[in-house]
Amino acid sequence: MISVVLLGSGNVGTHFFKAIEKAENVRVAQWFSRQIDSIKGYKNKTAITDNLSELMEADLYILAVSDDAIATLSSALPFENRLVVHTSGSVNVHDLDKKNKRGVLYPLQTFSKGAEMDFKNVPICIETLDKKSYPILKEVATSLGSPTKRVNSNQRRVLHLSAVFVNNFTNQLYRIGHEITESEAAEFDLLKPLIMETAKKIQTLSPYMAQTGPAKRHDKKTIEKHLDLLKNPEHKAIYKLLTKSIQNTHGR
Amino acid sequence: MISVVLLGSGNVGTHFFKAIEKAENVRVAQWFSRQIDSIKGYKNKTAITDNLSELMEADLYILAVSDDAIATLSSALPFENRLVVHTSGSVNVHDLDKKNKRGVLYPLQTFSKGAEMDFKNVPICIETLDKKSYPILKEVATSLGSPTKRVNSNQRRVLHLSAVFVNNFTNQLYRIGHEITESEAAEFDLLKPLIMETAKKIQTLSPYMAQTGPAKRHDKKTIEKHLDLLKNPEHKAIYKLLTKSIQNTHGR
Repeated sequence: MISVVLLGSGNVGTHFFKAIEKAENVRVAQWFSRQIDSIKGYKNKTAITDNLSELMEADLYILAVSDDAIATLSSALPFENRLVVHTSGSVNVHDLDKKNKRGVLYPLQTFSKGAEMDFKNVPICIETLDKKSYPILKEVATSLGSPTKRVNSNQRRVLHLSAVFVNNFTNQLYRIGHEITESEAAEFDLLKPLIMETAKKIQTLSPYMAQTGPAKRHDKKTIEKHLDLLKNPEHKAIYKLLTKSIQNTHGR
Repeated sequence: MISVVLLGSGNVGTHFFKAIEKAENVRVAQWFSRQIDSIKGYKNKTAITDNLSELMEADLYILAVSDDAIATLSSALPFENRLVVHTSGSVNVHDLDKKNKRGVLYPLQTFSKGAEMDFKNVPICIETLDKKSYPILKEVATSLGSPTKRVNSNQRRVLHLSAVFVNNFTNQLYRIGHEITESEAAEFDLLKPLIMETAKKIQTLSPYMAQTGPAKRHDKKTIEKHLDLLKNPEHKAIYKLLTKSIQNTHGR
């Protein structure tokens, strides 16, 4: 049984807590949060604290806090030579204080407050600075049900960057679709099955093979009609840039 | 029982054929294609022809042909005063020859060759120029299992435009994610659960509410890191423009 001290009670921390609770080979020995009120509801399930000097001994310390807080919190830990990881996609593993063994458990997923998340849909990218820590992190991630992948710093960085494209930027395209449909009192809901199908398609096809539409067909007439319809200059700029990008990808 | 003559044997035509075949109140009386070979395999299921002068009498003629072919084909039809619709999101309903009653059955979905499509996931937008034609089109679409929505020309146009944003442009963001991850030999597959979750989230949340990430948080440090990582000038431009768009949507 691997014992974990979890630090942080935000979205990621809470999802880790719930996933570890269900796992067989891992347990949360203690949960730390500066906002102790936010975890009081869990005090029958694990020890809780808001005091770093009360931290228990454990096999693994997971720092599920905001990017900016990672370095400071890791320096404030009152112990040495234990295994400490953060959960961020973009923070350098060396930002963790070197007095401890360091690593990263980066869950490549978007977490919603409230909604449950099955960790079989949460790939965990594992990075370590020393070889011995890897098997422990691998066992923790696997116990949660996650697919795991060992990555280096560069790989974690490009995965985080790519996640911004396929998640945040994609969601902004949904938002623009919402604005455009509402401008004519058409229903955005009609687009939802298409949105699901677009995501489903690339589970088995490469995005290159899955592409369709006027940009790929170099269908000038339709592209002109669309640019005429777009009133928002920013939407027009996005339409032009992504159309050009598709055409550069697919040529003639 | 509503009888349909289907014209066109591309992706959309073939998916309509298969859906009508399963429906109870509609039947394909005849299938027309200039490429008769492409529908020969169906000759035991319906009458097939490549000759317009052989077209049978039917309650409805569905022109599932490419945008550019719609006007010419509708003028070439050797009859008058019958109900003729096209299936395009962007072609004007008036492009159909006015010798017949005119309408549109626009399926708001992306069809893949080969893969079956359950029409309960294919919303059909219905447009008609005369009131009497609407109930027939509504009954056909409903019989296929589709959610239906009556739309006007402007609404159909903005739905088609929005579909380009949420389907083609989103798919290009997946493609860019693919390129970026491969540049460091990281696995694009790790992003697939995130892609599904991003699409799933907006089935119940608005895209506005679903947004997260460095752009929305105005997290300058992460944004700079990402721009440093991006080597392709086009990817950089897309990153900047979509980040600005998110920030315009969400303010400070």
